[in-house]
Amino acid sequence: MIRFNRVPSLLWAAAVLAGTLLPLRSFADDQDVRDYRSHVMKSMGEQLAALNQIVTGKAPAADASVHAQALRITAGLAKVAFTEKVPGGESKPEVWARWDDFSKRLDDMVAAADDLARTARQGGVAAVAPKLNALGCQGCHGEYLVQKK
Amino acid sequence: MIRFNRVPSLLWAAAVLAGTLLPLRSFADDQDVRDYRSHVMKSMGEQLAALNQIVTGKAPAADASVHAQALRITAGLAKVAFTEKVPGGESKPEVWARWDDFSKRLDDMVAAADDLARTARQGGVAAVAPKLNALGCQGCHGEYLVQKK
Repeated sequence: MIRFNRVPSLLWAAAVLAGTLLPLRSFADDQDVRDYRSHVMKSMGEQLAALNQIVTGKAPAADASVHAQALRITAGLAKVAFTEKVPGGESKPEVWARWDDFSKRLDDMVAAADDLARTARQGGVAAVAPKLNALGCQGCHGEYLVQKK
Repeated sequence: MIRFNRVPSLLWAAAVLAGTLLPLRSFADDQDVRDYRSHVMKSMGEQLAALNQIVTGKAPAADASVHAQALRITAGLAKVAFTEKVPGGESKPEVWARWDDFSKRLDDMVAAADDLARTARQGGVAAVAPKLNALGCQGCHGEYLVQKK
C-alpha cells in the first residue's frame, strides 16, 4: 500500500507549484494533437473539394461564398493545430524540422483564404477559380504530407 | 448517319424553348450530387469531431467558437445538398421516401447549430457540451445513413 503521508510535504508543495507555473497544455495527449490537426485539415479539405466542384460547374454556384467563409475561419486554426511538435499521423517530421518554412506557408494560406472568401462574397464563381490554387495546398502537401500508398 | 437536318425545325425550337424554361440544374450529374452532399456533411463531421475533442478537454477551448461558427454556416447548405432525389452514396432511400421527416430534421439541425454557435461565442466550453447532442446527428444518422460494415 502506498503511504502518501510519507512523502515529504515540501516535495508535494514543489509539485503543486510546478503544476501551477507550467503552461496549461491544450491537448490531453499526443494522439489528441494528431486527431485535432486531422479534423482541422480535413474540414478544410472538404470545403475546398466543394469549391472545386462549384468552379467546375458541378455544384451550386450560390454556395461558393459559404464554403469560402467556412474555409477562411478554419484556416486560422491550422497554426494552433501544428504548433505542438508531435510527429505522426499524416505529417512528415519535416513540418517541425523546417518549421520556419512550414509556418510561413500556413500564414500565406491564411492570407489566401481571406482573399478567397472576400472574392467569393463579391466576385462570383469565375473570380473564385484562380484563387483556389493560391491556397498552396498541393505544394505544401507535396513537402509535408505523408503520401498515401 | 444521323441526319440532323431531317429533324423538323419546330421540334428544335421546342427543345430550345424547354431548355430555357427549365430551371438550370445546379449539378452536372448524379455523382456530383452525391459528392457534394458528402463534402457538406463530412466538413460538418470534422468540425463536430473537433468540438467533441474540445468539450472533453482534449483540444484547445479557445477554438470552440470557430468550429461552431464553421459548422453553423455549413449546416445551412445541407438542405441544398439533399433536395435533389439522388439515392446512393451513404444516403438511404428513406431520405426521399420520408422527405418531410428528414427535411424537418435538417431544419432542426440548422436551428441547433445556430444556438450552438451563439452559445460558443458567449458561454464558453462548459455551455457548449450539452448543445452538441441537440444537433441530432446520431438519431438522424441512425435512420438515414448507410452504416459502414
